[in-house]
Amino acid sequence: MAWESIAARKRQALKDSIPAEWVIPADVLPPNDQGDVVSFYRESAFFTSEEREITSTTAAKILENLSSGLWTAEEVTRAVCKAAGAAQQLTNCLSEIFFDKAILRAKELDAYFRETGKTKGPFHGMPISIKDNLNVVGFDTTIGFTSLVDKPAQHNSVIVDILLEAGAVLYCKTNVSTAMMITESVNNTFGRTVNPRNRNLTTGGSSGGEAALIAFGGSRIGIGSDIGGSLRIPAACTGLFALRPSCGRFSNFLARACLEGQESVNGVIGPIAATLDEIVLCSRTIVDRKPWQFDPKCHPIPWREPVEIKRPLRIGVLWNDGVVKPTPPVARALEQTVKRLKEAGHEIVPWKPTDHLEMLGILQQLFLADGGRSVRALLEPTGEPFRAEMKMWESAKELSVYELWQLHCSRNALCKAYLDRWNDAAIDVLLCPATPYSGVENTKFAYSGYTCVFNLLDYPAVSFPCGVVSDKSLDKAYVDYHAMSDLDAQIQKNYSAESVHGMPVNLQLVGRKLEEETLLTVANLILSDIAA
Amino acid sequence: MAWESIAARKRQALKDSIPAEWVIPADVLPPNDQGDVVSFYRESAFFTSEEREITSTTAAKILENLSSGLWTAEEVTRAVCKAAGAAQQLTNCLSEIFFDKAILRAKELDAYFRETGKTKGPFHGMPISIKDNLNVVGFDTTIGFTSLVDKPAQHNSVIVDILLEAGAVLYCKTNVSTAMMITESVNNTFGRTVNPRNRNLTTGGSSGGEAALIAFGGSRIGIGSDIGGSLRIPAACTGLFALRPSCGRFSNFLARACLEGQESVNGVIGPIAATLDEIVLCSRTIVDRKPWQFDPKCHPIPWREPVEIKRPLRIGVLWNDGVVKPTPPVARALEQTVKRLKEAGHEIVPWKPTDHLEMLGILQQLFLADGGRSVRALLEPTGEPFRAEMKMWESAKELSVYELWQLHCSRNALCKAYLDRWNDAAIDVLLCPATPYSGVENTKFAYSGYTCVFNLLDYPAVSFPCGVVSDKSLDKAYVDYHAMSDLDAQIQKNYSAESVHGMPVNLQLVGRKLEEETLLTVANLILSDIAA
Repeated sequence: MAWESIAARKRQALKDSIPAEWVIPADVLPPNDQGDVVSFYRESAFFTSEEREITSTTAAKILENLSSGLWTAEEVTRAVCKAAGAAQQLTNCLSEIFFDKAILRAKELDAYFRETGKTKGPFHGMPISIKDNLNVVGFDTTIGFTSLVDKPAQHNSVIVDILLEAGAVLYCKTNVSTAMMITESVNNTFGRTVNPRNRNLTTGGSSGGEAALIAFGGSRIGIGSDIGGSLRIPAACTGLFALRPSCGRFSNFLARACLEGQESVNGVIGPIAATLDEIVLCSRTIVDRKPWQFDPKCHPIPWREPVEIKRPLRIGVLWNDGVVKPTPPVARALEQTVKRLKEAGHEIVPWKPTDHLEMLGILQQLFLADGGRSVRALLEPTGEPFRAEMKMWESAKELSVYELWQLHCSRNALCKAYLDRWNDAAIDVLLCPATPYSGVENTKFAYSGYTCVFNLLDYPAVSFPCGVVSDKSLDKAYVDYHAMSDLDAQIQKNYSAESVHGMPVNLQLVGRKLEEETLLTVANLILSDIAA
Repeated sequence: MAWESIAARKRQALKDSIPAEWVIPADVLPPNDQGDVVSFYRESAFFTSEEREITSTTAAKILENLSSGLWTAEEVTRAVCKAAGAAQQLTNCLSEIFFDKAILRAKELDAYFRETGKTKGPFHGMPISIKDNLNVVGFDTTIGFTSLVDKPAQHNSVIVDILLEAGAVLYCKTNVSTAMMITESVNNTFGRTVNPRNRNLTTGGSSGGEAALIAFGGSRIGIGSDIGGSLRIPAACTGLFALRPSCGRFSNFLARACLEGQESVNGVIGPIAATLDEIVLCSRTIVDRKPWQFDPKCHPIPWREPVEIKRPLRIGVLWNDGVVKPTPPVARALEQTVKRLKEAGHEIVPWKPTDHLEMLGILQQLFLADGGRSVRALLEPTGEPFRAEMKMWESAKELSVYELWQLHCSRNALCKAYLDRWNDAAIDVLLCPATPYSGVENTKFAYSGYTCVFNLLDYPAVSFPCGVVSDKSLDKAYVDYHAMSDLDAQIQKNYSAESVHGMPVNLQLVGRKLEEETLLTVANLILSDIAA
């Protein structure tokens, strides 16, 4: 079958899997030209106040209400599924829907709870959304390719087993970019996921389905993945929190990658949510399940509650990476955040983007090292074309193993130099933009350099809304016409103060490798200080 | 200059670097046909009883005597250097000698101790020998290649800095096999290191210089490296203990590899010593220095004293790997060890060599994946030929990156299957041969399959003398003419009960990834039980 037909059929099947009673009636459906649809979630009578109460309650409180018996898993699951169905209809954020299965499981959990008075585990009854690349038996894992449609998974990803063992309720999988290698969530199978805060803006990629779903209100905790910014970029586009952990903390085993076997820069999974507390809750719960017992790539590092963080912090600040400057809202947000951190007594250390450009160059070569063969192998069976965003893979030249090894040597030297520099500066944490954008129109997201260097370095990083909101008046003062590069010129040219007005601004905090606990604790401290 | 001349000059320089007073006089020098030269160390009047007392004292006690002021670092260093010089003259185990520098450093440490009453660190005054591949500023790191002669290192390996910071005295570097890829320690620059217990037998490789030096009495603690058995095989050939830790525990950064940038199977460094206590002491001391602060590849996992080990242990036993059977002394040693463990009340679980052959096949492809270009690049500058043992590299075909990635996928699936099997069997530890040999004549070491599978799996493993000694009468009953493979037939044919008579037999204990502390504690418990 031609790829277009496969895609059309899959999209129809997805549409049909939303129960009729959760299809938004035409008379209340926001018009296509309405940007903000979060308002629909917040205000429409399509949701009952009980449903809205559930879906706007934080995960910790939901779990408390479940374990106290105040709420049943079924009612929580129903509310969340209904919101997710609406999110799908308004932002096209899902790739698989199995609400029926979720409700069945919730009922089983409720029965267990009634009979034993006990919960099944720390996630008992908690609906958790997962990115398309995670395998769930019986459902597709397409990562956007039509050739992977109707090839249901034969096994669960390790993290899926861990979540289920912990009592979680899985109810949907979320849309991604083709190959998870585009910074917007668009592919030839499901099309484009848009940003629920403003559908003219991108939700980012590749975990953009998660971001749209959560930003809308259809999930409290999502599991995405990140190999170059795929969690942190969508979080930044939608004003959410996301953690990219170091490799070996959370299990990414038996998940689908596009570049299967590519291990020079490892993809990781991580949580994305509306609050930092939910990021911490999810991280701790996963690590407490000892993923290293089931995943040969994980390290036996238990969740370590960090010792008290000493004040003041020494915070490195990367104002720009020497390649692309942050757009005005981000520049202002960073300036204001630094100002508040100084006022709170922290030491600010300027951090140079030494070697960032070199790292980006190596990262790109590593991703293209197979000459696009892995991508081509997934396109060819159905005659699916390379998307425009994937042209780099179409024209890439395959490297030999010897050439790859030389890249590893260069990368390792850069990693060592960065670590030495970090030690010399004695910083606790690095603060920098998460992306150049506070938001950007669909098709225009053009730079992932602020996130992906930390994939090469394997440092944990949090993308977080810093409290600043894009403002077309205030941001004017931050327009800077001096371009650092052609790409910078293009990005500054595409910046539209009007388009992003009102969008929250995310920044990024980066910590030492495998020190996720410390990073999250520092992030929490910094959040309080900048909110104060 | 032709490679032969470079090699000859380097060997002469090495010879000349032994102080005249430590050159063994011709009249006491054991004749070339004398196999055992450990007896020379034990009995010859060339050593004073004070010197022998120092060099036969365990590291912990040496450190105690140094920190109590009973011994000076200088006298310890002089005694050890003299023994090392003798070891070099009798087994050709060294590649760099810097006794003068060591004595100077020892004097500085003594002065510091006299002035402050304090030691410089946990290794204060402890002479530690290191394998050739570790970089020490000002000295060569040839890994056997003539092209790397007279190219003194410009920086220290991270582990070298760590040892020096801890107060250790470095005094020599030890010989290896070409590229550290041959299981005997022989190369075109320094020639062959032989086994001090019987010079007709190999000392193993690639950390064979360390093994010979320590087995002779010229070092208490050595640091070697292991990418396929390079620590465990020499330990087995000489009746020593060695730990191959998992990747990311000890720093292997800024050390020379032959296949630079090859990261599909990572080399690691680890300790080799005459006692298990010294292995533990060295491991703990290194990890306590937090190598992850300096090495971007290390994990922040502190040394964890294991909780009490529950008895009885569940011990998996791999009687053979389905490819090559252990030779009679090893078969008998394994049988006797298992018998004693049963008597001590432990549960014995037979462990099948499932997937071992597949893992060996993948490992070989990974090592040859650059088509020998890395090796060739080190041979060509001086016209040095491929050694016969390296023919595989000479004829290897370079893989493309895509092909390499497919190998990673296969490897990962095998690693997962092995972990699942381990979990299902619920074993605490795996007991197996370290090599098929208790000893073997020079040039005849032919199989590293028992060690290198655990490099692919990245499990920590200890090679240890189990207390059984090869015995030509007792071992007869274990001769087995049923060959499992052509290689097995050849190895059984080459087995000479006469040649290895009296050689200690090592076995191997394998633990869970990154659980070095537990493995060493279990090893200690097992050692007591089998000695009882």
